[in-house]
Amino acid sequence: MSINDYIKTYQKRVNDALEEAIKPLAASNRLTDSMLYSLRAGGKRLRPILMIASYESFQKDIDKVFSTASALEMIHTYSLIHDDLPAMDDDDLRRGKPTNHIVFDEATAILAGDGLLTYSFEWLAKDPLLSDREKTKLFQWLAEASGPAGMVAGQMLDLQAEEQQVPIEQLENIHKLKTGQLIKFAIKAGAFLGGAKENQLEYLDEFATYIGLVFQIQDDILDVIGDEETLGKPVGSDEENEKSTYPALLGLEGAKKHRDNYETKAYEALEKVGITESRLFDLTKFLTERKY
Amino acid sequence: MSINDYIKTYQKRVNDALEEAIKPLAASNRLTDSMLYSLRAGGKRLRPILMIASYESFQKDIDKVFSTASALEMIHTYSLIHDDLPAMDDDDLRRGKPTNHIVFDEATAILAGDGLLTYSFEWLAKDPLLSDREKTKLFQWLAEASGPAGMVAGQMLDLQAEEQQVPIEQLENIHKLKTGQLIKFAIKAGAFLGGAKENQLEYLDEFATYIGLVFQIQDDILDVIGDEETLGKPVGSDEENEKSTYPALLGLEGAKKHRDNYETKAYEALEKVGITESRLFDLTKFLTERKY
Repeated sequence: MSINDYIKTYQKRVNDALEEAIKPLAASNRLTDSMLYSLRAGGKRLRPILMIASYESFQKDIDKVFSTASALEMIHTYSLIHDDLPAMDDDDLRRGKPTNHIVFDEATAILAGDGLLTYSFEWLAKDPLLSDREKTKLFQWLAEASGPAGMVAGQMLDLQAEEQQVPIEQLENIHKLKTGQLIKFAIKAGAFLGGAKENQLEYLDEFATYIGLVFQIQDDILDVIGDEETLGKPVGSDEENEKSTYPALLGLEGAKKHRDNYETKAYEALEKVGITESRLFDLTKFLTERKY
Repeated sequence: MSINDYIKTYQKRVNDALEEAIKPLAASNRLTDSMLYSLRAGGKRLRPILMIASYESFQKDIDKVFSTASALEMIHTYSLIHDDLPAMDDDDLRRGKPTNHIVFDEATAILAGDGLLTYSFEWLAKDPLLSDREKTKLFQWLAEASGPAGMVAGQMLDLQAEEQQVPIEQLENIHKLKTGQLIKFAIKAGAFLGGAKENQLEYLDEFATYIGLVFQIQDDILDVIGDEETLGKPVGSDEENEKSTYPALLGLEGAKKHRDNYETKAYEALEKVGITESRLFDLTKFLTERKY
């Protein structure tokens, strides 16, 4: 199966798992409609797919991973809803569709985000396939990754860095928190559930840091040279908003080199894990070369 | 010890526990400053104290309950920060102090709420005194109580009911979700950690429903006849905002009768639990008669 087919196959399974997760809430009301709107608004399901691939590197029966993958995607979705709010990045469009607060209103969007964040923990707590020990570990990692020393801290720093050029170390720190922590959770949680050993988790931690940066640099590059239709969003918005980006700091070619350097380091870290066959190799390549 | 001294004693211990919980985050930055501002803005610590009293009805060594009590107060605090936002209730003052988004800004207040919500789960996950089985149960209950079928649903319904008179059944449903669910969690989690039996938890569930309603009706009454200085907020705001309240629907005397009726039912439920000595009796009386 090509990596593109692999991604498509699991996107579908993740979407099904998310629908399943939301079903217990499905008595339609403004709040659940708003949560569902953003959950269904598409998206690459990149984090869940990384989690599945990480799990599959150790164990084949992947049923066990889906509630954790769904919980992660709910957290990611909540963060997008809140980031798009007028008081934050003030975005009207995401993935070619109106953002949550445009379709509903600000109050509903805030509550939809709160609801998704809380429900992700509820869904994880209720998973019959995981042991209490596994749940406790996942809770801790997920809360750390998405909380005030993780993703939320990253969004705060990102807002504070607006309309100024920050040095590359600071930019990298923001990305490690804002996008990197959830990607790291995806990789580590998948491997943990698959039965990876402690030292393997450490190398995967390193690997995850690198692919998180690859992902972010490519994001910045696509905002310069991407195709609006393929991306589903306007390009050039970073420059317009005077955001600090890799191309702005390093030039386009410099940014590409920087990305490719992290790609190489990602492979090196992955080699050290000692798993011979893993979709994580292909996915790293995909992240480096992606057009959307 | 009088009930007032009991409350004061445990308010102090809860405040200490909250400071302890926040310490690992304490590298001062805009986000943690904002989280701390609202955590330290006072408040009765009513939910943690109910949890402690519920725990103490079964077991004396109360150390075990403080991280859960802290997690609950973090969730309560996050909900106040988000409720006060301009897009929601748009309140500038709480407990006599400027609200979070007034002191910081809207974006920071949204993130401080997100941070507190997430960190409450992290803090619970890390508690060395609780078993994985206990943590999993608490996670599930806490997420259910505060999530999109609990508190968040209540806030959504409350916003939708604004500027209209709703029937009393609907008003009661809103309160059962918006304030009742966290009070119920306080009572049930405390008793569960203290070792209550399944049938005792069921009676306490019933008890918690009644004291939740007592609490809310008294809140509405105090907004009519309370003393502004004692309350730390202006009275008459419900009428001004055309909010549906018990006094508006039942008249002041009718509301008091309604409250006293639930107080009686609360005692009856508590009797059935079969605990002879419990501060929950005094606390029910306190909730009924409170002036602030």
